[in-house]
Amino acid sequence: MKKLINNVDDVVIEALHGMEQAHPDLLKVHYNPNFLTRADAPVKDKVAVISGGGSGHEPLHGGFVGKGMLDAACPGEIFTSPTPDQMEEATKAVSGGKGVLHIVKNYSGDVMNFEMAADIVQGEGIEVASVVIDDDVAVKDSLYTEGRRGVGSTVFAEKLCGAAAEKGMTLEEVTNIAKFVKENGRSMGMALTSCIVPAAGNPTFDLGAEEIEIGIGIHGEPGRERMKMKTATELVEMMGEAVVSDIPFKSGDELIVMVNGMGGTPLIELYLLYNQVAAFAKAKGLKIVRNLVGNYITSLEMQGFSLTMMRVNKEIVELWDAPVFTPALKWG
Amino acid sequence: MKKLINNVDDVVIEALHGMEQAHPDLLKVHYNPNFLTRADAPVKDKVAVISGGGSGHEPLHGGFVGKGMLDAACPGEIFTSPTPDQMEEATKAVSGGKGVLHIVKNYSGDVMNFEMAADIVQGEGIEVASVVIDDDVAVKDSLYTEGRRGVGSTVFAEKLCGAAAEKGMTLEEVTNIAKFVKENGRSMGMALTSCIVPAAGNPTFDLGAEEIEIGIGIHGEPGRERMKMKTATELVEMMGEAVVSDIPFKSGDELIVMVNGMGGTPLIELYLLYNQVAAFAKAKGLKIVRNLVGNYITSLEMQGFSLTMMRVNKEIVELWDAPVFTPALKWG
Repeated sequence: MKKLINNVDDVVIEALHGMEQAHPDLLKVHYNPNFLTRADAPVKDKVAVISGGGSGHEPLHGGFVGKGMLDAACPGEIFTSPTPDQMEEATKAVSGGKGVLHIVKNYSGDVMNFEMAADIVQGEGIEVASVVIDDDVAVKDSLYTEGRRGVGSTVFAEKLCGAAAEKGMTLEEVTNIAKFVKENGRSMGMALTSCIVPAAGNPTFDLGAEEIEIGIGIHGEPGRERMKMKTATELVEMMGEAVVSDIPFKSGDELIVMVNGMGGTPLIELYLLYNQVAAFAKAKGLKIVRNLVGNYITSLEMQGFSLTMMRVNKEIVELWDAPVFTPALKWG
Repeated sequence: MKKLINNVDDVVIEALHGMEQAHPDLLKVHYNPNFLTRADAPVKDKVAVISGGGSGHEPLHGGFVGKGMLDAACPGEIFTSPTPDQMEEATKAVSGGKGVLHIVKNYSGDVMNFEMAADIVQGEGIEVASVVIDDDVAVKDSLYTEGRRGVGSTVFAEKLCGAAAEKGMTLEEVTNIAKFVKENGRSMGMALTSCIVPAAGNPTFDLGAEEIEIGIGIHGEPGRERMKMKTATELVEMMGEAVVSDIPFKSGDELIVMVNGMGGTPLIELYLLYNQVAAFAKAKGLKIVRNLVGNYITSLEMQGFSLTMMRVNKEIVELWDAPVFTPALKWG
């Protein structure tokens, strides 16, 4: 195993030190338990928005901490849920008196630990709401998940809820934005290669020289099907069809779309895929009004991509366009 | 070879179609010959800043086209210099009457073709200046280069010259900013793995399971030395020493630093490396005043990283902080 690290046990903590030193203008890093908060937290009389989960999916979640997006993120060890004390302390640290929203990706450990943390802080008088994102249409149940996995829509939920909170919305209103994302966003991923979890030292799974896995999970959980390599056009049609037919999206719908790299995919391929996605959407009568193309929710160095599509309305697009100042998503 | 493409011959053009559809607010794509311009080009009475080079290094250069950075970028085929007609037409398309600066990475084909284009457009009355960036301290001459290769500092030159032009500086003044970068920026890269050029279908070079290459070029050109895998701390000390000792940088110097992924490196590892770079700089009495951590000048899916450090002054930091609106670098 070749990795740009020191010891397998120190990867997460040393990367947090790096985040702390790279972005003091945007965020603070807290240790024991570990969490990141925006630099000016807590913000008084604003709903606070928190997420978290296993590390190895960067920039998710720490790279989305900052004004206009997350108030805090709780990083677990690689591909491992954070512990309840991380969410507990993060919630207390960013609570501004107007309530706290937990955005949770649907993995059993994450859900359980966020719930435990919410119970504790609610007992101490902080109002907490939770929304579980479960947008991955690939499989019904998965290795670490009861029900669908939470993937790319989480990025949308973090951006939109952060903007809603910044705008002064109540906890109920911000929570409704997260529920909107949950109801209207759908995703699917695929892999060309596995990644290697540092502590494991070996690929999570094996794929043949011309084999791919459709519907892969972000921890390498099995997807729908292994098959022979396909062209970009075929992949986008297959995955796009699965995503679009789920709710389903209808001709005339307006969408925010993300073509996301799994961590080891060249950006030139992601733009090539976006070209196919744009053609696919057009053929379906779907109108892409905003897009992200790049690495937003990754699986270490896995090669592959995921496609996320979300139906939107005018209010959602306005929240999308609102200023955001985080390491990974920034516009003013 | 597994790649997210259709045909090996259409990778660049299809990715350009993707860029065009993803970023109509920021840029335009022109075909036959191929180049990208900022959406509002030409900007009257502003120096225009152009760069270009082989594709496969995305976001360089097309991802840096937009207000506050490049007026145009000319993408060659993968790892292949663009042809003179691309630079010629791009220069004409963005010329606003105040002169045009060509920022050229030092590869023999790029240098020659930019020169030919400059000669032609100058014959037609457009004033052109050129600065060749050659910041890679790894090797003196290289496979495709007489003299040092141009790498990470190019990103700095594009940002700073774009800001200088936006501020209303003359061609001579903007050119002096590029010369400042050339004189004060130094880089070095390393690889854990090779990438596969689509048209070749096989890895450009081979590395053993525990072998790395120090001083690698962005097209996989041989570096200084192959060696056994090292820790992040050892790598940063070895590469940092090579970068810092070249000019040399001196205790008290202020720096802009980039920890750049080669395309297949997980972001968590880049932040871990940045932690080491910050410690290394501190021990040398160097003060990092601004930084970039991420994929900015890549080699398709190569795993590895490069380190770029540039001495700066107050004027340079102000240009760095100036607003920029491009697909890959954005702040307002």
